[in-house]
Amino acid sequence: MASRQREISVSEFFLKNRHLLGFDTPSKALVTAVKEAVDNALDACEEAGVLPDIIVQVRDRFGNSRVVVEDNGPGIVESQIARIFGKLLYGSKFHKLSQSRGQQGMGISAAGMYGQLTVGKPLHIVSRVEGDELASELYVSIDTANNRPDIHKKRRVEWDRPHGTRVEMEMEGHHQQGPHSVEVYLKQTAIANPHVSITYQDPQGKEINFVRCTDRLPPRPKEIKPHPHGIELGRLIQMLSNTASRSLLRFLVDEFSCVGKKTALEIIERAGKPLSDRSYPTHIAHAQATALHHAIQKTRVQTPRTDCIVPIGEAQLLEGLRKELQADFYAIATRPAAAYRGNPFQVEIGIAFGCPGEPSIEVDASGHMRKTKAQDADAVEHLIARKDEPIRLLRFANRVPLLYQQSSCAITKAIIQTNWRTYGLHQPKGALPIAPMAILVHVASVWVPYTSESKEAIEPYPEILREIKLGLQQCARQLAHHLRRESHLRQEYDNRAYIEKYLPHIGIALQDILALSDDERDSTVNKLDNLLHMSRTTRRLEP
Amino acid sequence: MASRQREISVSEFFLKNRHLLGFDTPSKALVTAVKEAVDNALDACEEAGVLPDIIVQVRDRFGNSRVVVEDNGPGIVESQIARIFGKLLYGSKFHKLSQSRGQQGMGISAAGMYGQLTVGKPLHIVSRVEGDELASELYVSIDTANNRPDIHKKRRVEWDRPHGTRVEMEMEGHHQQGPHSVEVYLKQTAIANPHVSITYQDPQGKEINFVRCTDRLPPRPKEIKPHPHGIELGRLIQMLSNTASRSLLRFLVDEFSCVGKKTALEIIERAGKPLSDRSYPTHIAHAQATALHHAIQKTRVQTPRTDCIVPIGEAQLLEGLRKELQADFYAIATRPAAAYRGNPFQVEIGIAFGCPGEPSIEVDASGHMRKTKAQDADAVEHLIARKDEPIRLLRFANRVPLLYQQSSCAITKAIIQTNWRTYGLHQPKGALPIAPMAILVHVASVWVPYTSESKEAIEPYPEILREIKLGLQQCARQLAHHLRRESHLRQEYDNRAYIEKYLPHIGIALQDILALSDDERDSTVNKLDNLLHMSRTTRRLEP
Repeated sequence: MASRQREISVSEFFLKNRHLLGFDTPSKALVTAVKEAVDNALDACEEAGVLPDIIVQVRDRFGNSRVVVEDNGPGIVESQIARIFGKLLYGSKFHKLSQSRGQQGMGISAAGMYGQLTVGKPLHIVSRVEGDELASELYVSIDTANNRPDIHKKRRVEWDRPHGTRVEMEMEGHHQQGPHSVEVYLKQTAIANPHVSITYQDPQGKEINFVRCTDRLPPRPKEIKPHPHGIELGRLIQMLSNTASRSLLRFLVDEFSCVGKKTALEIIERAGKPLSDRSYPTHIAHAQATALHHAIQKTRVQTPRTDCIVPIGEAQLLEGLRKELQADFYAIATRPAAAYRGNPFQVEIGIAFGCPGEPSIEVDASGHMRKTKAQDADAVEHLIARKDEPIRLLRFANRVPLLYQQSSCAITKAIIQTNWRTYGLHQPKGALPIAPMAILVHVASVWVPYTSESKEAIEPYPEILREIKLGLQQCARQLAHHLRRESHLRQEYDNRAYIEKYLPHIGIALQDILALSDDERDSTVNKLDNLLHMSRTTRRLEP
Repeated sequence: MASRQREISVSEFFLKNRHLLGFDTPSKALVTAVKEAVDNALDACEEAGVLPDIIVQVRDRFGNSRVVVEDNGPGIVESQIARIFGKLLYGSKFHKLSQSRGQQGMGISAAGMYGQLTVGKPLHIVSRVEGDELASELYVSIDTANNRPDIHKKRRVEWDRPHGTRVEMEMEGHHQQGPHSVEVYLKQTAIANPHVSITYQDPQGKEINFVRCTDRLPPRPKEIKPHPHGIELGRLIQMLSNTASRSLLRFLVDEFSCVGKKTALEIIERAGKPLSDRSYPTHIAHAQATALHHAIQKTRVQTPRTDCIVPIGEAQLLEGLRKELQADFYAIATRPAAAYRGNPFQVEIGIAFGCPGEPSIEVDASGHMRKTKAQDADAVEHLIARKDEPIRLLRFANRVPLLYQQSSCAITKAIIQTNWRTYGLHQPKGALPIAPMAILVHVASVWVPYTSESKEAIEPYPEILREIKLGLQQCARQLAHHLRRESHLRQEYDNRAYIEKYLPHIGIALQDILALSDDERDSTVNKLDNLLHMSRTTRRLEP
């Protein structure tokens, strides 16, 4: 048996388990490939401070799909291209703590590996760094047995872009419409990234433009050190033995975020003898490290810094929602930053309620009420559910839309675990509420814990669930207020309609009793009617 | 930016994403660690043809958990121990196509890595190969930056076992009761593995024995070549260029299962010129390989061989169910083997219906009916749901119980997508049916497509969903028959009770009309009563 034991290359592993990377069916593979390339393009542009202009092209080619994604980013130096596109687990984002779309160094190589597996063709990359006279063109595939790039062709070519990257891949893909389509992915990307311009050419040759609505790039997220409260004992021991700091005090201050000299001294004192501020980190034994670990957990440390996270922002979020989802009522909530396992994260919530297609009651300036007509159902935007359907979710992590695995996601679980009945909505047990509503949730973090390498859902860590729920409650309270107001209006409308129906009869009765002329009767009825609306206007139900 | 690009070690990746391997919370980590060690032990024993005797020990130790798993397997040669326990993606099961519990070469090293992270202690391994005078003892941890084992201590020691392996690990763990406990995992393991003996000492010092109920080892699964219908074009191209076969005919016959000379010639003819049976595999160009790939898909090939899969067996499954789940009615179905992406798999289903705690109607030999009394609810086994609860699932893959991520699993989806209303059960839309029932589903395959590296749920590939649904329908038809019979019985019981209530009155009426004595009246009533039960006995409703 011993002779059969051998090493498994990470590429072999993911080739056999390609569903883990999102390449299980041809339709999902196509969306995943586009997503990985677009995520990389956006990250590159933002890191270089360039407003992203992205071109996405999907074509059918002999029954397979050809995908082209082109950006105006900073380009990639030639020596790195092959490894970035032809090696799994290679990248610049894994080892630093700062918010980015990519984090694993797998996505685009995995797309290439899938193309290679199903069509047998390498990735075709063109990239030009600003200032270079020519662009680099490479054809790269993965040597899966060794997780190494195979370069098939490499040369310098003319390219009309001053800088940027273009990747072309061919794969077994199936283009579909609906909630899991390339178009919906790009549309949702536009909602969460108002500074991005995307031109999409679909397989039918139709061109769709998602135009930026702001020229301001989001602030660049800062890189941070780990927060002391999220450090496991084993990691602490490893950090102690690897540090360049020559005293325990310096180690604590230099290697962690939010630890100043005062906090560090407090930790060291709490850890007790024989540790002191001048202890040499690499000489600290297991028992003392354990004491130090306990002391860290018990010491009050500032909450994580938040400049490593860049939320979308309330104004931008509201604008994005309004632009893409027409509704009667919107609510937005931004939670303060929190941390799970020492990783800072922040939650933003947006709610859009009420299909404009449904009839509702309007009050004009003079206090007159009227029912609006039901609109043509087909004209209504379908990102919001109908009133007898479960609500729709728009899930985002680090500004990237999550289209698959809704049921395993922390966002879905938090919504289900919220008691929507207390806010006036119908909610079956253990299910999403039933309402004409869409909920947008954005989780931004320096390290998003995805439930799989395909990054389709967020692991429901308790701290993350908690923050999402608190944000939902904030929005739900505003919603409940809106619903109460709506229901008051509806009730008053019904009462009013009832009285108005009998006003002429009252007029006739008055005419009999007081012996009024027809004109006097009509004017009395009119006065009564106006009085009714006046009373409504003076004691308006608006907040 | 280029200078920040670097390689990510697979250990670093999974250390940061440890929830992917099932180590997200202390309670789940404990169950996962036990599971990985027990899976390895069972695989080793079965591969060596030894009836498995496993000892599992969980202890609290200074707030952490200490787990010991010991087996009577063949042991591990000393030179391999460090790599098996101290390196991710290293093992014997990944590269061969045959059914086993482990397949990734990650589980036990990941458990060690988690212990190292949370408690900072290495794994402690003792192993002895039969015939060796002494056992090997090693303390191993993982050098995560390089995914390499770190050996802290290595020596030869006396051990009272002639052969076997013992692994001891300490980790941040939390022992809990309930459906996600070590005990339930072991209990379910015993159901699916009637040939296994397990002794479990829980943290309270209680010893629980799961005794084997058969001395027969399951047949050893055969190793197979891939089935041609599951081969992607890219893989075919790679196989063509790597083969040692010197002709296309030999290549097809040697490298695939289920391809004989006749089928191979048919494929080659269909692929067309310039390919022939004597084409040299390594010289075949991309266009010809594409034609060959098309030809393979279009040619009828035998269904996959099934001796690579070892189902639990209907008799064993029924015995396991009866032993652990008391119910009124059982149904078992075994599907024939099928394949997804060329990987053979087979589905077994078991249904247990009706809590014995609930009242039901019994018919004795003479045809007399009576209602059984409701039993004490606490005495009822809780692996079956109560009648107003969603049914319980027992999910297995390659004889391993799956405890987590039920909602993402192909098994759950297949059950939800089955229309249970046509079989007489209540089922809310898009949810599990509501019934006093447990469904056991076992999916055995040479390569189980798990939804994550923690192997907690099966990816819902369409072929797998289809087979599970067909098996469920088979069982559900038997269940519907049982339910109809029950409902007939209940109806007849009600009718009968009604008539019996009036029999004495009929007697009195007859006495009046026919001027009978009291004795004659009573005997007539008795005869009528018996006649009633006789008619029931002659036209029994049993199948």
